[in-house]
Amino acid sequence: MKNYSIAKSRRLRSTPYTSRIEKQGVTAYTVYNHMLLPAAFGSIEDSYHHLKKDVQVWDVAAERQVEISGKDSSKLVQLMTCRDLSKSKIGRCYYCPIIDDNGNLINDPVILKLAEDKWWISIADSDVIFFAKGLSAGNSLDVKILEPRVDIMAIQGPKSFNLMEKVFGKAIKELKFFGFDYFDYRGTKHLIARSGWSKQGGFEVYVENTESGQDLYDYLFEIGKEFNVKPGCPNLIERIESGLLSYGNDFDNNDNPFECGFEKYVNLDADISFLGKEKLKKIKKEGIKRKLMGVYIDTDKINLTKSLNIKDDRDNFIGDLRSACYSPHFKKVIGIAMINEPYCKASTSGLLEIEGNSFTVKVCDLPFI
Amino acid sequence: MKNYSIAKSRRLRSTPYTSRIEKQGVTAYTVYNHMLLPAAFGSIEDSYHHLKKDVQVWDVAAERQVEISGKDSSKLVQLMTCRDLSKSKIGRCYYCPIIDDNGNLINDPVILKLAEDKWWISIADSDVIFFAKGLSAGNSLDVKILEPRVDIMAIQGPKSFNLMEKVFGKAIKELKFFGFDYFDYRGTKHLIARSGWSKQGGFEVYVENTESGQDLYDYLFEIGKEFNVKPGCPNLIERIESGLLSYGNDFDNNDNPFECGFEKYVNLDADISFLGKEKLKKIKKEGIKRKLMGVYIDTDKINLTKSLNIKDDRDNFIGDLRSACYSPHFKKVIGIAMINEPYCKASTSGLLEIEGNSFTVKVCDLPFI
Repeated sequence: MKNYSIAKSRRLRSTPYTSRIEKQGVTAYTVYNHMLLPAAFGSIEDSYHHLKKDVQVWDVAAERQVEISGKDSSKLVQLMTCRDLSKSKIGRCYYCPIIDDNGNLINDPVILKLAEDKWWISIADSDVIFFAKGLSAGNSLDVKILEPRVDIMAIQGPKSFNLMEKVFGKAIKELKFFGFDYFDYRGTKHLIARSGWSKQGGFEVYVENTESGQDLYDYLFEIGKEFNVKPGCPNLIERIESGLLSYGNDFDNNDNPFECGFEKYVNLDADISFLGKEKLKKIKKEGIKRKLMGVYIDTDKINLTKSLNIKDDRDNFIGDLRSACYSPHFKKVIGIAMINEPYCKASTSGLLEIEGNSFTVKVCDLPFI
Repeated sequence: MKNYSIAKSRRLRSTPYTSRIEKQGVTAYTVYNHMLLPAAFGSIEDSYHHLKKDVQVWDVAAERQVEISGKDSSKLVQLMTCRDLSKSKIGRCYYCPIIDDNGNLINDPVILKLAEDKWWISIADSDVIFFAKGLSAGNSLDVKILEPRVDIMAIQGPKSFNLMEKVFGKAIKELKFFGFDYFDYRGTKHLIARSGWSKQGGFEVYVENTESGQDLYDYLFEIGKEFNVKPGCPNLIERIESGLLSYGNDFDNNDNPFECGFEKYVNLDADISFLGKEKLKKIKKEGIKRKLMGVYIDTDKINLTKSLNIKDDRDNFIGDLRSACYSPHFKKVIGIAMINEPYCKASTSGLLEIEGNSFTVKVCDLPFI
């Protein structure tokens, strides 16, 4: 597998932490919301083991915010998602599929309710801001839409709780999952949520005061030695094992929320208005024709850079593999695939061809762990 | 300057030409519209000299299309741009700033009019499709919006005309600048425009039939030996010397079209409806406070990865440098910068600090050549 360089430019925006992670040994980047997102610090497998055991600090500034405020802000936010937000509370995060007019997915952000008339949509990799601007202009809504200067750093891993307690005191441990509050660091208030793109536990600091955030970043490494803190980034192996889906990888604007296992976030019976509602009712009634599933692949290495077709033993297409990695836990390759009816049920078998070699694929339910 | 790898995944989509350019020696990628865009085949300076002398074939599939068709398609397309399209003709390309409700830029695509009720918006790096979907839903327009499977390959450079004549015959040379038509290649019709992201002349083939496009790609190299054809990509040096602006690099959603020198594409007096029209009238009346300008920098190398501040000799901020390269033509570094009033006129001087060293900056008009 040949490596290619990333050609940096202003268009692939740096973060306030970029110079730090480059000193700390980042080796690979991906691009996410037009921004650099670290993808590796050397071995992804070493980083996976460390993340499951200790604690990591991640530069995830590429999780940009779309801030929607003003009189009609709740109306606009609801219009964009099929999840019922009518009973949502200030201080809580909500995982919300964003849906277009066809009932297909545009993004799967976490939405933070900051006030009755102020929201942050913490987005996956697509320009939700322009969807919001188009919808708002088209509906003549009274809202203000902008990308605030917020650069998230995540603290993830089982020891994140003790590390964060050392900085912010006991109160931070009482934060409930998907709750957020403001915590003081040397005189600056930071919005901190108990959330993050791993299943190992942890926090996300929504840094608005850049200087204080950079100082906090350094401080976490200073005082974190006893917890074996290391720099890290969203980990391909950990996220696939945990079944954390990725917009653009596992699903995109050609897929609907039922195909992606998001049923519990689709509130068709609620008395709310959102785009694609009638389309989703129709899809639900007719039933889906394919579904995101897990797969075990009978090999011990893979480097997936695009979809690969999965076929049955008579060479019929049964689905496409969208993410994959070698799993140290299962000691084989696992992946996430969009599998057609009637094959999308656990224990179905298929075949995957990689560079001329054929491997057995076994379908399973998500998540793996 | 350390190199970092790009972490490939399905989310950074490959193109139908990716496997070909990797065999041909691509060394660096950027990401553009969630897709891999080649950024270098070895030395950018060697490629610059070759592009100005001979002919190159480029994988620019990352220039994605937003297809808008249906009864209200003209209305929607016009709503998105400040350029008057009321007299636009089928078979022509139009460079059109896309504007939001605040009068700021969202993209600067070339729009192709395929039929009275069918358009392709050939976009720079932002998700115009979601802006269109939002606007369409908000205004209840009768349109169909999708990203068609179109993967552009560009043939650029002074010898592109003779190379293309060898494939398509004399007629291709009669295509006017920004005109397009359908041309036959071995029984398949391809939409070809006289356009491209260089000022060295050339064509863009909007490949809809992938297999035929890949075959054409190979054929161009087979028969192009006499023209010294090589693989290439949009060239940083050539595009800066030519003053070809880049969305995300030179300007973005924080800038308006007057600041970017797009006056001639802003038709405020036309009897047309578009977003931000009143805002742009106000901006025009009040006058702009800054402008994109060229700069000469008194050094012979630079590697710009983000904005750099330009100051006057009393340390006041006067603007920010957004793109830059060493220019073999001027034998110094040149760049594109957003310069504040009253400094945004030719011959103003400033200072730029790079890694502790201070260099003299001289402002000039765009384009350089």
